[in-house]
Amino acid sequence: MSQPNIPDTGLPRVVVVGGGFGGLAVVRALLRSMMQVVLIDRNNYHLFQPLLYQVSTAGLEPESIAFPLRGIFRYSKDFHIRMGEASKITPEKSILETSIGPIGYDYLVMATGSDTNFFGMADIETHAIGMKSLVEAIGIRNYILRQFEQILLINDPGEIQSRLSFVVTGGGPTGVELSGAIAELKKHVLPRDYPELPIHQMTVYLVEASSRLLASLSEQSSRYALASLQKLGVKVMLQTSVKGYDGNTLLLSSGETIRTHSLIWTAGVRGVPVPGLPGSSVLKNGRVQVNIYNQVEGFDHLFVVGDIAQQVFDPRFPKGFPMVAQVAIQQGRLAAKNIMRLQSRLPLIPFRYSDKGSMSTIGRNKAVAETAGLRFSGFPAWLAWMGAHLVFLMGFRNKLIVFINWVYRYFNFDNGSRIIFRRWVSPMDKPSQPGNEEVK
Amino acid sequence: MSQPNIPDTGLPRVVVVGGGFGGLAVVRALLRSMMQVVLIDRNNYHLFQPLLYQVSTAGLEPESIAFPLRGIFRYSKDFHIRMGEASKITPEKSILETSIGPIGYDYLVMATGSDTNFFGMADIETHAIGMKSLVEAIGIRNYILRQFEQILLINDPGEIQSRLSFVVTGGGPTGVELSGAIAELKKHVLPRDYPELPIHQMTVYLVEASSRLLASLSEQSSRYALASLQKLGVKVMLQTSVKGYDGNTLLLSSGETIRTHSLIWTAGVRGVPVPGLPGSSVLKNGRVQVNIYNQVEGFDHLFVVGDIAQQVFDPRFPKGFPMVAQVAIQQGRLAAKNIMRLQSRLPLIPFRYSDKGSMSTIGRNKAVAETAGLRFSGFPAWLAWMGAHLVFLMGFRNKLIVFINWVYRYFNFDNGSRIIFRRWVSPMDKPSQPGNEEVK
Repeated sequence: MSQPNIPDTGLPRVVVVGGGFGGLAVVRALLRSMMQVVLIDRNNYHLFQPLLYQVSTAGLEPESIAFPLRGIFRYSKDFHIRMGEASKITPEKSILETSIGPIGYDYLVMATGSDTNFFGMADIETHAIGMKSLVEAIGIRNYILRQFEQILLINDPGEIQSRLSFVVTGGGPTGVELSGAIAELKKHVLPRDYPELPIHQMTVYLVEASSRLLASLSEQSSRYALASLQKLGVKVMLQTSVKGYDGNTLLLSSGETIRTHSLIWTAGVRGVPVPGLPGSSVLKNGRVQVNIYNQVEGFDHLFVVGDIAQQVFDPRFPKGFPMVAQVAIQQGRLAAKNIMRLQSRLPLIPFRYSDKGSMSTIGRNKAVAETAGLRFSGFPAWLAWMGAHLVFLMGFRNKLIVFINWVYRYFNFDNGSRIIFRRWVSPMDKPSQPGNEEVK
Repeated sequence: MSQPNIPDTGLPRVVVVGGGFGGLAVVRALLRSMMQVVLIDRNNYHLFQPLLYQVSTAGLEPESIAFPLRGIFRYSKDFHIRMGEASKITPEKSILETSIGPIGYDYLVMATGSDTNFFGMADIETHAIGMKSLVEAIGIRNYILRQFEQILLINDPGEIQSRLSFVVTGGGPTGVELSGAIAELKKHVLPRDYPELPIHQMTVYLVEASSRLLASLSEQSSRYALASLQKLGVKVMLQTSVKGYDGNTLLLSSGETIRTHSLIWTAGVRGVPVPGLPGSSVLKNGRVQVNIYNQVEGFDHLFVVGDIAQQVFDPRFPKGFPMVAQVAIQQGRLAAKNIMRLQSRLPLIPFRYSDKGSMSTIGRNKAVAETAGLRFSGFPAWLAWMGAHLVFLMGFRNKLIVFINWVYRYFNFDNGSRIIFRRWVSPMDKPSQPGNEEVK
């Protein structure tokens, strides 16, 4: 029988579920407090999601954007990490059920993030791939590279064209960055790797339902992103959505069809709430409605932060804050502070989002960035983008390795980790092992 | 229907199976010849096996010791790479059957390397793990790290001790390096990652059937390796072999038993010959008997090089050459030369092995090295070991990233890639995709 084995040290216990940006912000802010902190995550690493698309396009090795959670909190006292998944909350009894057994808490912070939203379209969920986890990013890398190895072996021109067509849905930063990076592969890497193939016939599509890309940025930045992607050869389809996909043919809202084997879905995210929350606080999009202190109404000791939380009191964001790292970090820090204030019977501080701006790369040396009223684009924005990402990337070793990869790639037009990993089964690799469940 | 689609350019075709040290040596030597060269490998990368143990122990990311084959031969003409596996040779008709269809050849070079040899012990094959592929190395890394996450969740002292016991079999360079690296994890990394666990109880065993470690080196080096490993805390058991293992209890030839969940098997390698070779040339150990020119007797156009080849004419190596990179490289180069000589009707050159020496690291800054009559050990040997490995590692980016990892690890006593990858299934990740078969 496995059990979490968290020692009772007499200090009030804060349980944090999720080691993403939000969860880490909570934990960090609590480390010097008189609290016991327990961090639960299904993985043993913090993932730097903003660079996931570079793993998908063979530009970075997975380990360079993942940082072992235990490495972050090595010198912390009364701090405990457990690999496991939350399965149920019983807030009335202050108990969290997990895959490794029940854990009692004094304060609970749910920071479980978001997952791909296929909006209930089962055929798309079956045939498309999302890009929210390291495992999915490696899967996309394997898949893209395998297409070209496959094309070498077939002669049917229609089938070849179909495998040379890559469709990305969603015109947010992820879709823009991913489609741009695939277009760069087409331009610089694939023609040298596959001189036998008609790489010039390769087509990268970016499908966006609204009338512009990067909707969270200004119109100017949207236009710049559109023009830059088009210059890279990406076929951007605005005001277009995906209606169906059977793994071979994609049906668009315009009635048009695209023959493709590759649909990468970044068009939506949703929360995946843990059962046990009051039904009234779980919204249709799976996010959890919270009050201005990020508490679930009626449960003062239950906080929800980051992508999974929905807070609608800010007139700038009537539908809730964007699902970005900055919101998660600020909410996490405040939740930690408010937990300490609750403990000291001080009045709580309401959440105020300080919008630090937003940025997105387009291809190898362009970007758009907007911050504090400043708007810039092109090469300077790209340098700013690189700098900001290196600053927020965890760990000196990772920063160094990512930086070297970028410098190398800049001068060599080469994506170094074009490695196809095979799936493995081994006697020691039983699905029953924690952290070894099959995942999508 | 897939087919290899190799164009007929009128040049004589050399088919090389395997992109390891041997296969690459053949291909490189033929690039400026008037030959068409076809390289078949089940993976799309060349693997630098000597550093595999550092992937297993979270010291290096897998991508840093794998180099994309297409990156090596980008600017070569009439050169073709196909991902596939050889399934049958029909030397009488000069046809190689593969998983992607039949390929006719004028010359065939088999360089398929070796696989783990469990010597027919089915229980060990079921419960132990070998370390010959990247996938296995990642599997070992996942497995080792998972043990400690598991131990946190259990209370039975016997079970905890069992999970804290790691057994490596085979006292060659792989076993010595791997057991030393696990002992370093125990010393520097695990106590900081798992302050809650009794890491001091962790035991690393190295089991070797003969009377000394590193049998291919001098007695002095063997003694030095033994003393160094013992100083690191490795329990070295010489003149001991494994008699049975049920996944929980290991039975040794001494009658002693060890409770362990982790048996890593580096105690033997064997060839895996492709069917169709004359029965008389396939030896019991799976290696293929070749003549002094590395040809299969009776088939002048069929060469076998590297680990899979067995040549017994050198009085220094009456049982065949050791299965090391140097032999494979030298045999590969000569096979290429002899193919060109056959084509020009010149007499063939017999193989002569020029033994460049041998080395092995022990832990973080010691090694033994012997070359050209010179024998050294300790820190200087470790520097020589690092230099030699960086020189032979393929690709500037990989050299740089490995070097940075080493420097970082040297000063920080930290193994940066302690990431547990989960197994994945995804709609795009069908086992039917080439290169995506489940592998051990």
